[in-house]
Amino acid sequence: MSKNGNTTSKYQIGEELLKQNRPDEYKNIVEGLAKFSPELGEFLIEFVYGTVWSRSYTENPVLPAQTRALVTISCLATLGREPQLRSHITGALNVGCSKQEIVEVLLHLCVYAGFPVTINAIKIAQEIFKS
Amino acid sequence: MSKNGNTTSKYQIGEELLKQNRPDEYKNIVEGLAKFSPELGEFLIEFVYGTVWSRSYTENPVLPAQTRALVTISCLATLGREPQLRSHITGALNVGCSKQEIVEVLLHLCVYAGFPVTINAIKIAQEIFKS
Amino acid sequence: MSKNGNTTSKYQIGEELLKQNRPDEYKNIVEGLAKFSPELGEFLIEFVYGTVWSRSYTENPVLPAQTRALVTISCLATLGREPQLRSHITGALNVGCSKQEIVEVLLHLCVYAGFPVTINAIKIAQEIFKS
Amino acid sequence: MSKNGNTTSKYQIGEELLKQNRPDEYKNIVEGLAKFSPELGEFLIEFVYGTVWSRSYTENPVLPAQTRALVTISCLATLGREPQLRSHITGALNVGCSKQEIVEVLLHLCVYAGFPVTINAIKIAQEIFKS
Amino acid sequence: MSKNGNTTSKYQIGEELLKQNRPDEYKNIVEGLAKFSPELGEFLIEFVYGTVWSRSYTENPVLPAQTRALVTISCLATLGREPQLRSHITGALNVGCSKQEIVEVLLHLCVYAGFPVTINAIKIAQEIFKS
Amino acid sequence: MSKNGNTTSKYQIGEELLKQNRPDEYKNIVEGLAKFSPELGEFLIEFVYGTVWSRSYTENPVLPAQTRALVTISCLATLGREPQLRSHITGALNVGCSKQEIVEVLLHLCVYAGFPVTINAIKIAQEIFKS
Repeated sequence: MSKNGNTTSKYQIGEELLKQNRPDEYKNIVEGLAKFSPELGEFLIEFVYGTVWSRSYTENPVLPAQTRALVTISCLATLGREPQLRSHITGALNVGCSKQEIVEVLLHLCVYAGFPVTINAIKIAQEIFKS
Repeated sequence: MSKNGNTTSKYQIGEELLKQNRPDEYKNIVEGLAKFSPELGEFLIEFVYGTVWSRSYTENPVLPAQTRALVTISCLATLGREPQLRSHITGALNVGCSKQEIVEVLLHLCVYAGFPVTINAIKIAQEIFKS
Repeated sequence: MSKNGNTTSKYQIGEELLKQNRPDEYKNIVEGLAKFSPELGEFLIEFVYGTVWSRSYTENPVLPAQTRALVTISCLATLGREPQLRSHITGALNVGCSKQEIVEVLLHLCVYAGFPVTINAIKIAQEIFKS
Repeated sequence: MSKNGNTTSKYQIGEELLKQNRPDEYKNIVEGLAKFSPELGEFLIEFVYGTVWSRSYTENPVLPAQTRALVTISCLATLGREPQLRSHITGALNVGCSKQEIVEVLLHLCVYAGFPVTINAIKIAQEIFKS
Repeated sequence: MSKNGNTTSKYQIGEELLKQNRPDEYKNIVEGLAKFSPELGEFLIEFVYGTVWSRSYTENPVLPAQTRALVTISCLATLGREPQLRSHITGALNVGCSKQEIVEVLLHLCVYAGFPVTINAIKIAQEIFKS
Repeated sequence: MSKNGNTTSKYQIGEELLKQNRPDEYKNIVEGLAKFSPELGEFLIEFVYGTVWSRSYTENPVLPAQTRALVTISCLATLGREPQLRSHITGALNVGCSKQEIVEVLLHLCVYAGFPVTINAIKIAQEIFKS
């Protein structure tokens, strides 16, 4: 059960999903963001992971976690949200996407979002792949 | 061979790809845009389809056409490019994506690009699925 | 209690809030969007209204509904999300914002988001105020 | 002298510039926008035209009106502000830009802002050139 | 009277407003930006502060300075303009907004602009509140 | 002839153009980006420079290189793509644009893209001009 009396079901699902697949992200939320804004921590765990991402963890997901990860990367690179792009490139590798798939997605965006989006995102991928 | 002396290889690949998989889009380019701007027509056929999209039509594509289509939809919905979103939702159905997959991608974007992106894109999907 | 076994508490709060303050928007969701995508309807009622907007309907809200409405308008106009801007200008009038306040917010955005944002948003306000 | 006691100098300069070079835009502001929001009309005439655009109408402008017009088109197409893009494509033709220059600018943007920006803007140019 | 013979009235109003309410921002403009581009300094002091922000410092402002500050924060966070967001979060505290109000505004944006906007902006708020 | 069997004509044109006018950018691509993603290197050399920028290096270019550079700067500043803006401000100086022209373009954007775009871009210009 969640700490503040929220929906135990979705909050717990979100917590479990994070602990298993994104322990780095879980730590980031719980020890970082949630200490400053408990509500933001709750929205993330309960809604973002417990309600939306969990849809890739049912028995017959419409969208497997890998595809969901690539779709997320496409969106974040297009918007230029660099901290989240870093996090989700790591996440994509975690759920089984290959480095080539990730780079291919970023390369594709040059057509629809322009070359700067592709170049800036590919530089981030390069840094993450090195580490 | 292309009309204006460009790379026959990529231009032809682009033309073939469009005629086979996106005849509607081919007609749109050749009879519409290219009549007003021949260069734009060429860039589209030679670069966008002949160089980038063709990467899903090799023997062992890193990104299958279906995933490439969902990544495109994610980018276009995020940017709010409605005419292209219409075109590529149709294209995604053409290459074998299901309606549920397409809606699931658009739903996912509410987290990263906001609910207005999801709502406006889902309305477009709804119109296309009806027709 | 919500239909699909979700958190009754937040879903119900969202439903109540919509029925009382935004009956037009409630109808829009339930009879429109939710028929095509039940999940989207749920996210909107449970998360957007039941979890986020409801924060202006507690005993001592940090942000009164009127300020929340103006902040929403600022964001939507900046992003150019016209359908949602229409809806939330109506919503702002519903919760007690004056027409002058709304126009003043849109005018202010010319500095931070550019004059086209202000002009396009003010035209929408003009249409809504006429009706 | 301007009506509401503003800087006579910049307001008058803006009015003159609009009447001479953009009578359509002047009419649009004075008979349309300014009737709904006098302040917006003032900001446009005094600041946008009287302070910024007037910088191309001095003796030795750093940026001639034609270049300023192409820079404006680049910005508006990139942002997808379609009403203003229409207006400023007309304005560019008014100050002496050729149709080929305008199309070439829009074509160039496919690299930096993506093909959808170019396609949507070129369609607008096509409509304006026809009329 | 301003140095280059501009409207004394608005320039002076802008200068006064900055010196009283945003001495840090005034110093930033006069000693920084304006040394490199005197015109930019003038536009900021005369138009941004002297014409637009001054509208919250009349006898019966349509929008009090606090609401104007929150609307500005909403716009800047949505656009991801981080340097200006830093500046205006400080400004909001200066004109009497509470830390909770500011965080609540940023939290609200997760719905309309996506979670990355909220997270990145809240991190900036966190840094400013610490100092 | 290019290394990977692509269109010799456009790839070579791109290489030549870069070596002559943008040796810094050429080095950046060949020794940096292309080592990580050979395809990205190819797209840049063959399409961006060999197909699009080369259009300013024909006998009677519709758009001279200087104007193309200013249009690029307008787009990149509007989108907030800072690494590319740095690169293209340098490029604009290389092809003969003056510092005043560049600053004037950035100043102009305050009207159409908002003051934050202008301020952040002018700070970048300031750094580049110093070095």
